[in-house]
Amino acid sequence: MTISATNMRYWWVNHKQTARQEISGGYLWAPLCEANGVRSQFYDNMRQAAPGDIVLSFANGIISQVGVVLDYASPAKKPEPFGTVGENWSDAGWILPVRWTPMAKPVRPKDMIATIGPLLPQKYSPIHPVSGNGNQKAYLAEIDKSVFDIIALSSGNEFALESLVRVADATNEVIDRVDDAAQAAIENSSSLEATIKRQLILARRGQGLFRSRAMKLGRTCRLTHLGNPSLLTASHIKPWRICDANERLDGANGLVLAPHVDRLFDRGYISFENDGRVLVSKRLAEIDLIHLGLLDACRSPGEIFDRSQIKYLGFHRDRVFLG
Amino acid sequence: MTISATNMRYWWVNHKQTARQEISGGYLWAPLCEANGVRSQFYDNMRQAAPGDIVLSFANGIISQVGVVLDYASPAKKPEPFGTVGENWSDAGWILPVRWTPMAKPVRPKDMIATIGPLLPQKYSPIHPVSGNGNQKAYLAEIDKSVFDIIALSSGNEFALESLVRVADATNEVIDRVDDAAQAAIENSSSLEATIKRQLILARRGQGLFRSRAMKLGRTCRLTHLGNPSLLTASHIKPWRICDANERLDGANGLVLAPHVDRLFDRGYISFENDGRVLVSKRLAEIDLIHLGLLDACRSPGEIFDRSQIKYLGFHRDRVFLG
Repeated sequence: MTISATNMRYWWVNHKQTARQEISGGYLWAPLCEANGVRSQFYDNMRQAAPGDIVLSFANGIISQVGVVLDYASPAKKPEPFGTVGENWSDAGWILPVRWTPMAKPVRPKDMIATIGPLLPQKYSPIHPVSGNGNQKAYLAEIDKSVFDIIALSSGNEFALESLVRVADATNEVIDRVDDAAQAAIENSSSLEATIKRQLILARRGQGLFRSRAMKLGRTCRLTHLGNPSLLTASHIKPWRICDANERLDGANGLVLAPHVDRLFDRGYISFENDGRVLVSKRLAEIDLIHLGLLDACRSPGEIFDRSQIKYLGFHRDRVFLG
Repeated sequence: MTISATNMRYWWVNHKQTARQEISGGYLWAPLCEANGVRSQFYDNMRQAAPGDIVLSFANGIISQVGVVLDYASPAKKPEPFGTVGENWSDAGWILPVRWTPMAKPVRPKDMIATIGPLLPQKYSPIHPVSGNGNQKAYLAEIDKSVFDIIALSSGNEFALESLVRVADATNEVIDRVDDAAQAAIENSSSLEATIKRQLILARRGQGLFRSRAMKLGRTCRLTHLGNPSLLTASHIKPWRICDANERLDGANGLVLAPHVDRLFDRGYISFENDGRVLVSKRLAEIDLIHLGLLDACRSPGEIFDRSQIKYLGFHRDRVFLG
């Protein structure tokens, strides 16, 4: 995930009705697919955006914010602050953490469409290359650096390496806030018993009943063979924040891992085949695996998973693993 | 930390006024030293107790609970639920997580003092070996297995391997609750600004301003040389829960570490000399370091620390490192 200007990509988002929520929340959110169940390149692009990428925020005909992607997209339910907006969207989607900065001078792309029109992508353009009107189907669209440069120039902002470097220090507060909101929903639930509430909240940190149950399926880390319980983490295969109550406490949704292996798994840098083989994301530099002393472990055949874990592993490969 | 019956130790606690809070909270708490500043073996024993050890709970002349130590003691302020009880105790102390189980039949040691008196320790006994009255100075006292066996027999409880094995799955909820209480204190503070509150809370998870500041003192893990920011953890050297506001946000109190190194450091299994050499606790099995691939890294000279970090490192060696 080394941030380098060379492989940095540029994006343009058409927020539609949720600009306010997404800007103030520091993220983008899109459903998995369109209301009719069809996949969309504009939504699939959520998974393409990488830390250090730049996003132009377009709403009501104006670009007024520029963002830096802080992290890869994670599976997340539709954010609470959306309220009734986007009621036709599925609840399952992606959240992409972005640090937004207001532009010194907002830019109306329509005013410069003669210049930028020819530079916009032929397919999946965010606005019409001649009229400059927003593309109704568009959400997150990739744009050429030249389009960004023209808009940045008109906006009077200087987006230099400085903001990119700061990304390296930035933190995934967005995901913590999503988790906090899910926890608050549990705490405020009138249908859940107090003891269940407590266990659901403990499970967020891989503790309590969830941990005891996960431990029954394996007491050592499958990559490092570490067996000291005080050093092992019980990780959710399908992330806690998008689980229902049963999945949050299901031991089969748990994987007992050493802390560094847990981090790789949680962030989608590694995943597993059902037969136990390790999948390593192309987003992870080999040097990181070497530093962590996990290169050999990632190449060994591994142990087959329990049948009960298969559905959760499938979710992890599809939605968490960065590929 | 492998739990084995062979090196298991037996303890007896004289709760005094805080039995209710300690039993319901699932812990023992003792100040660092007596009110006059003198150290006490009974308080120092807090650091001797290890996961899997057994504790008899003695209050008002009766033993009515038996506990299993869940984790090593951690530095912790006097628990909130103590209220005005123990006002003469210093605020700095140790918390020891214990899972308590009520005895089937409470036991009055005085009734069997002729039997157990001769088996009690000559020095640092919890009760007088002849009168059976509680020793006013005593808090946590070590007892011989024979004393425990006699009391367990009278109590009608069966304390078998089962409860010990469950310790391995148990989780450190006590420390999470201490952290939660400290966070609630921040949230409810009327003297702190909202932006500071937010940063203090983010710092609990090694995020926000604290992380950016810690990153300025080092961008790679000093043991593994890992440099991928999305895999690094910014750890407090002096634990967040006992820091004041400045210490919670001080970058010099931060150490950027790979997740598994962070876990070892946080749990006191390793610490550092000021010159960078790694200290490894005798409580950590070498096999764990081998599994984590850290054996060589722990033996290399390491890099000297910044002057600003020395006072925090001193705290870590004294109070967090298990020695």
